[in-house]
Amino acid sequence: MQNEIKTGERVILFFPKKRKKILVEIEADKEIHTHLGIIRLNDLIGKEYGSSAKSNSNKKFFVLKPDLSDHLLKFRRPTQVLYLKDAALIILQTGICSGSIVVEAGTGSGSLTSFLAYYVKPDGKVYSYELKEEILRAAKKNLAQIGLDDYVELICADVTEGIRETDVDAVILDLASPWDVIPHAHRSLKGGGLFASFSPTYNQVEKTVLSLLKNGFTDIKTFECMLREIKVEEGSTRPATRMIGHTGFVTFAKKIIFE
Amino acid sequence: MQNEIKTGERVILFFPKKRKKILVEIEADKEIHTHLGIIRLNDLIGKEYGSSAKSNSNKKFFVLKPDLSDHLLKFRRPTQVLYLKDAALIILQTGICSGSIVVEAGTGSGSLTSFLAYYVKPDGKVYSYELKEEILRAAKKNLAQIGLDDYVELICADVTEGIRETDVDAVILDLASPWDVIPHAHRSLKGGGLFASFSPTYNQVEKTVLSLLKNGFTDIKTFECMLREIKVEEGSTRPATRMIGHTGFVTFAKKIIFE
Amino acid sequence: MQNEIKTGERVILFFPKKRKKILVEIEADKEIHTHLGIIRLNDLIGKEYGSSAKSNSNKKFFVLKPDLSDHLLKFRRPTQVLYLKDAALIILQTGICSGSIVVEAGTGSGSLTSFLAYYVKPDGKVYSYELKEEILRAAKKNLAQIGLDDYVELICADVTEGIRETDVDAVILDLASPWDVIPHAHRSLKGGGLFASFSPTYNQVEKTVLSLLKNGFTDIKTFECMLREIKVEEGSTRPATRMIGHTGFVTFAKKIIFE
Amino acid sequence: MQNEIKTGERVILFFPKKRKKILVEIEADKEIHTHLGIIRLNDLIGKEYGSSAKSNSNKKFFVLKPDLSDHLLKFRRPTQVLYLKDAALIILQTGICSGSIVVEAGTGSGSLTSFLAYYVKPDGKVYSYELKEEILRAAKKNLAQIGLDDYVELICADVTEGIRETDVDAVILDLASPWDVIPHAHRSLKGGGLFASFSPTYNQVEKTVLSLLKNGFTDIKTFECMLREIKVEEGSTRPATRMIGHTGFVTFAKKIIFE
Repeated sequence: MQNEIKTGERVILFFPKKRKKILVEIEADKEIHTHLGIIRLNDLIGKEYGSSAKSNSNKKFFVLKPDLSDHLLKFRRPTQVLYLKDAALIILQTGICSGSIVVEAGTGSGSLTSFLAYYVKPDGKVYSYELKEEILRAAKKNLAQIGLDDYVELICADVTEGIRETDVDAVILDLASPWDVIPHAHRSLKGGGLFASFSPTYNQVEKTVLSLLKNGFTDIKTFECMLREIKVEEGSTRPATRMIGHTGFVTFAKKIIFE
Repeated sequence: MQNEIKTGERVILFFPKKRKKILVEIEADKEIHTHLGIIRLNDLIGKEYGSSAKSNSNKKFFVLKPDLSDHLLKFRRPTQVLYLKDAALIILQTGICSGSIVVEAGTGSGSLTSFLAYYVKPDGKVYSYELKEEILRAAKKNLAQIGLDDYVELICADVTEGIRETDVDAVILDLASPWDVIPHAHRSLKGGGLFASFSPTYNQVEKTVLSLLKNGFTDIKTFECMLREIKVEEGSTRPATRMIGHTGFVTFAKKIIFE
Repeated sequence: MQNEIKTGERVILFFPKKRKKILVEIEADKEIHTHLGIIRLNDLIGKEYGSSAKSNSNKKFFVLKPDLSDHLLKFRRPTQVLYLKDAALIILQTGICSGSIVVEAGTGSGSLTSFLAYYVKPDGKVYSYELKEEILRAAKKNLAQIGLDDYVELICADVTEGIRETDVDAVILDLASPWDVIPHAHRSLKGGGLFASFSPTYNQVEKTVLSLLKNGFTDIKTFECMLREIKVEEGSTRPATRMIGHTGFVTFAKKIIFE
Repeated sequence: MQNEIKTGERVILFFPKKRKKILVEIEADKEIHTHLGIIRLNDLIGKEYGSSAKSNSNKKFFVLKPDLSDHLLKFRRPTQVLYLKDAALIILQTGICSGSIVVEAGTGSGSLTSFLAYYVKPDGKVYSYELKEEILRAAKKNLAQIGLDDYVELICADVTEGIRETDVDAVILDLASPWDVIPHAHRSLKGGGLFASFSPTYNQVEKTVLSLLKNGFTDIKTFECMLREIKVEEGSTRPATRMIGHTGFVTFAKKIIFE
């Protein structure tokens, strides 16, 4: 069976009552001590994903494959993790897909890098720029741990001084001063190629758009994406009381050829 | 040059002043008559994507590669087109990617089918169920026109009577009564496999979640995604006055193994 | 009976099927021709508010007292009408109530003036500044028509040159450049008095807040208020598809005494 | 001077650096011990509102008049406090103003009661129903403390058994089962009178609207109001990261006369 739990795999133990997720690596003869009880990993090996088991304190849990967001929660984070909702908008709006050649800056924790790598695989590549070596080292470990490092080339360089790659499909920026990189992005992109930039403040958005207009881009659009959870209960369904009201704005544009 | 405009390709003519997009197929010796003037397609052949040209009434436009949303605007629509923001959330939250095996119902116009096919290619497959033959025929044409039909198997059948495929990675529903399909979705999915359902009303959401709880699913979550455009102008940046306030709610869940 | 329909009163004819509202003034022996049929006003005189009647084409309607929003829809509008949601936030957050002394600028169509007058009556007063005489004349007519002109003093003057009134409870601005008036607002307000400013762009908000910080204000807060209608139907309740995504931001502050 | 700080008054001490508010009652010869230092109230008496002073640990603060929301924060709360944004919408949409006769149920902590009393004063009246005597007692104290008890008649009774008052201008419900009170609300209201109901879940909204349709109401509308704070800083203005995503839905309707 292809879908069985094996040693060496990272799995999610999901306790439905508490909606608690624990990410563990399966090792033979190992026990995991949690505040919901002790779990013997031997009991899980060979079972199918989706199976349930119990801790020694009789708490039921399910063993699930971690999705990308589950992995990201475990990332060492010298910097902020980009939200899935924003990564989703960036990826679908730029059309990044299997085979795409993408330049990203800065790497940060590698969270957006992971999403990009996950979607360009198996034939595409993400070239990710980061100035600080220690941040890059943490991102490298994060990417390796989830098996996406083959699709990423991490570059320790100051992206405001230039981008080496040319004819790329998309340039994605998550930087404090994207306008410093926009002329390089233009040179790096192929004609009609896609640009996206994520920024938390209105001021950054305005400077980014003005720079795009001056540096050979068209079809410029800015969005904010608000995600609200709905609490569903029989006879008592309502939006969640608390929500993240803001992460950032995403600006999109397409490269034009100067003539 | 790989990135040049060739006959047979569908391109977007983007008029930046009006933010007007026109989707045309490049044919030699053809002229396109628009309300922004006449465009001779011969003038475009061999140029690089991202290049500009002018209509006979001197209106400047850029030639861009259509993205998936541009194509969808041209879809024959016996049914509603799913919004990119919702497709983005569904795809990233379920982790559908290159190689995934996905069941979808119903096909409708094929808009969500297109997004799914675009992300499972080149090695995955979308099995899409639709009851009405005429709707399926329109979807088939839509998919063929954008070159994604190889990654989709369209199935004319009543999905409430069963799903043939087994061990699939994800089941995605965009149906009036998803609860009629949930037991079939459970049988079709592999253990831990992902379920998503898109519904416009609170009532559908509540019935869907109750059915998921009874039919072997866990980690159930419902979201609504609100996308607002930001109008960026120097010294005068503000959110857009009008927005789409609601498209639908998306519910996610994971299959558990009964023991 | 106090609650009966009399000549001289303005009433709303509400057609529930179409959710159509028509504002008419009751006159004896008059007929109103609408696209939902002819209505004889004599039939309504002496009935109680809330009563129903029919047009000559058999369309049922109810006679209701117009509320402030109904009146505003009929305002001559040389300028934009402020939304009820924003007026509501301004009034409750500043605590403007019966007896309050309020300065407002600019008058515009008089829509916010109407809300302010409605809430300061019977013992308070709104001093409303407007530079352009023709705009002021239209506002005067609008206010008279709804019987709120006694609670407003309209002042044709350039508010950026000063405010005559002192020891006022609140200053409310709906102007392109509120920062030009903020020093005058400080002199006009009593200690601890309330300031509110409504602006559509984030650039205005930023300049307003910086000016407030420099000109003797504290407890400065900015909000945006989003109102979404819910379409309620048995078994099919959902948020409305279209909404107004943005009107403006409201900034609040309190005057401090320089020492 | 009318605007000076006197003994017996409740004031807000606002520390701008921390955005911290402390509500205190001014008493001669009293000291307040706070984590921002000791404050001698004698130093404040006779000063103008809006004046600043310092704690013994040299923290600067301003003395402000508490607004309604400041008072509500100090309410004993056997039940939830209604948000200002929702009270604002209810009051302006129903047109409740100086002189209005209003029925409210249930009283709860008295927070909505306070807003209603504040806006009907000096000539109107709020009749507020509450089943549980201990809740009513707490609300009575809350209202007395802010000087609004003269405008409210608190009624210890089961409002689902009937409303004594007739010809009232508005009935406002904040109850788990508003549909049990809707027929009584109809009898209590004058023709065309206004109804509003606040409920957290969509299920309640749906049952409320269906009951209104069957029990003599028209012009029925439901809204949700989302308030987001904007963090304004020079060159770095953005919406606040965290927000209250949901409090409740508000449904409005008008009484029709049965014929």
